[in-house]
Amino acid sequence: MLINGHAVTTIEATDRGLHYGDGLFETMRCENGRVRWLAYHLQRLASGCQRLRIQMPDPNLLQSELSALAVHHKRALLKLVITRGPMVRRGYRPASTEQPTRIVSSHTWPDDDGAPLRLGISSISLADNPLLAGIKHLSRLENVLAQQEAGERGLDEVVMCCSSGEVVCGSMSNLIVVSEKGILTPALNNAGVHGVMRALSLSAAAATGISLAIDRVNTAQLQTAKAIYCSNIRWGLRRVEQFDGRQLGSEARIAQLEEWIYAQP
Amino acid sequence: MLINGHAVTTIEATDRGLHYGDGLFETMRCENGRVRWLAYHLQRLASGCQRLRIQMPDPNLLQSELSALAVHHKRALLKLVITRGPMVRRGYRPASTEQPTRIVSSHTWPDDDGAPLRLGISSISLADNPLLAGIKHLSRLENVLAQQEAGERGLDEVVMCCSSGEVVCGSMSNLIVVSEKGILTPALNNAGVHGVMRALSLSAAAATGISLAIDRVNTAQLQTAKAIYCSNIRWGLRRVEQFDGRQLGSEARIAQLEEWIYAQP
Repeated sequence: MLINGHAVTTIEATDRGLHYGDGLFETMRCENGRVRWLAYHLQRLASGCQRLRIQMPDPNLLQSELSALAVHHKRALLKLVITRGPMVRRGYRPASTEQPTRIVSSHTWPDDDGAPLRLGISSISLADNPLLAGIKHLSRLENVLAQQEAGERGLDEVVMCCSSGEVVCGSMSNLIVVSEKGILTPALNNAGVHGVMRALSLSAAAATGISLAIDRVNTAQLQTAKAIYCSNIRWGLRRVEQFDGRQLGSEARIAQLEEWIYAQP
Repeated sequence: MLINGHAVTTIEATDRGLHYGDGLFETMRCENGRVRWLAYHLQRLASGCQRLRIQMPDPNLLQSELSALAVHHKRALLKLVITRGPMVRRGYRPASTEQPTRIVSSHTWPDDDGAPLRLGISSISLADNPLLAGIKHLSRLENVLAQQEAGERGLDEVVMCCSSGEVVCGSMSNLIVVSEKGILTPALNNAGVHGVMRALSLSAAAATGISLAIDRVNTAQLQTAKAIYCSNIRWGLRRVEQFDGRQLGSEARIAQLEEWIYAQP
C-alpha cells in the first residue's frame, strides 16, 4: 500500500473521506505487472474530481504509484482512493484549500470460478441525484446494504432501481440486457456509476458495429430478457444464469464485445 | 483524540468507514467538562448500529472515553465516529465479523456570534431511502455538496427536499416551521437525520404542552411561514432571519422549548 507515496498503512483520522464519504475511488485490474485500461480509469477519476471540486492528482504521479505496486503481480486488483484530504475546518463545507489524500493498494485476485451469476432485484432504491450520478464516490452505504441483502438471499448481485422504479445498475456492476428491443444498457443520468467495463463495452460496440444502446430499462424488460450480463473490472462481461429464479441464455455478440475489450491495453 | 481507546491520530487505511461511508457519527456539546444530552446521542447511535448491523460498542466504554476528553473543556464540540471497522474481505458485502472502529475527538467551539441565519433552498435533492432515513451515517456527500453550494450563495444553511419536492431538513440541521397550520417539523420517513436537538424539541413540546407536529411540509409553507428555526447541537434552536431574501419574525413558544431543553442534563 502507498499513501501519498509512502509505504504506510494508516491515514489521518481527520480525513474527509472517512467523515463524509468525500472522495472517489477506482478498482483496477493488474495483469502481468501492468494496469489494464488505465486511460479509462484516469478519465473517470478526473471527471469525478471536477464534479466534486477535488484537486485531481498529477496523472503521471498516480501512474507511477500504481505501477510500483503492479510490477509485483501477475494478476491482482489495484484500488486507488482519492479523498478531499484531512479537514481544514470542521463541518460539511469544504475550505477549498484541502490537500487530497491518495491511497493505492493491491489485493489478491478474488477466488472466483468464473461461474455465471445469480441475480435478483434489490429492495433498496438508489438515490436520484444528477450531481452524483456516474461518479465513483465514497458515499456507498446504499451499495453496502444492497450487497448485505444479496448475501442473505444467496445471490451474487442485485439490480438496483431508482425511486421511479427504472432500472439503473447492479450494486457492484453495470447491466447489459439482451431484449426484444436489442442490446441495451441503462442510462445513468440520475444514479449509478459509469463503469469502466461499461465504457469499454460501448467503445467495443462502436468499433465492431454491434448495436449497444443506452436506454431506459424497466424491470418488465428484465423479466422477459433473453440474456443479461453484469459488467465490472473483476467480472468482465459476466453472464447471468438465473434472474429471479428464471434461467437465462447467452448472446454471441457479447463474446465479440469482450474479445475486443481484452485486446485493448 | 482517542481511537479505540488509544491516544493516536491515525486509523487503518482499510477501514470501511473510509472506503464505503460505512459507519455512523454523533456531534455532541460539551459544557463545563460534561457531555450534554448524552442519553439522546447514545440512543440514536444504538438505533443506527442496529439498522446497519454494526456491533454497538459498550455505552459505558463510550461514555468513559467521551468523559476523558470532555473534562478538559469548558465549552467544546465532541465528535464520535463508529465505523464497521477495517475490511475483513474486499468489497461492499460485510463479512459480519468486522470489529468496529471508534473515534472520539474534541473540537474548539466554533466562532459563532449567535446571529440569526440566512437560509435558502438547495438545488440538491436528498435521496429517498427509508433504510437510511433518520440515521446519522457517514455517506454524506449530498450534505457536502449542499454546503458547498450554500457557501457560494452566501448562505448559512440550505433547505433540502427529497425527489418528490417535499421539504426534509437543512443540510446540517432540522427545521421547525411556524406556519398558519401551527408549529411543524418535517417528517423524516424517507430521508434526513433524526437530529438530537429535534428529539429534544419534541420532548420539550410534550413536557410544556406546546404543540409541535411532525408533518409533511412543502416549500410553499416555507415561503409563507411566520418564522423558521434551524436546530442542531451547535446552533440549538436558531432563528432564521432571512429565507430566500424575505425577512422572518420570531416565535415566543420556541424560546420556551429552548428553555426546557437547556434545563436537561
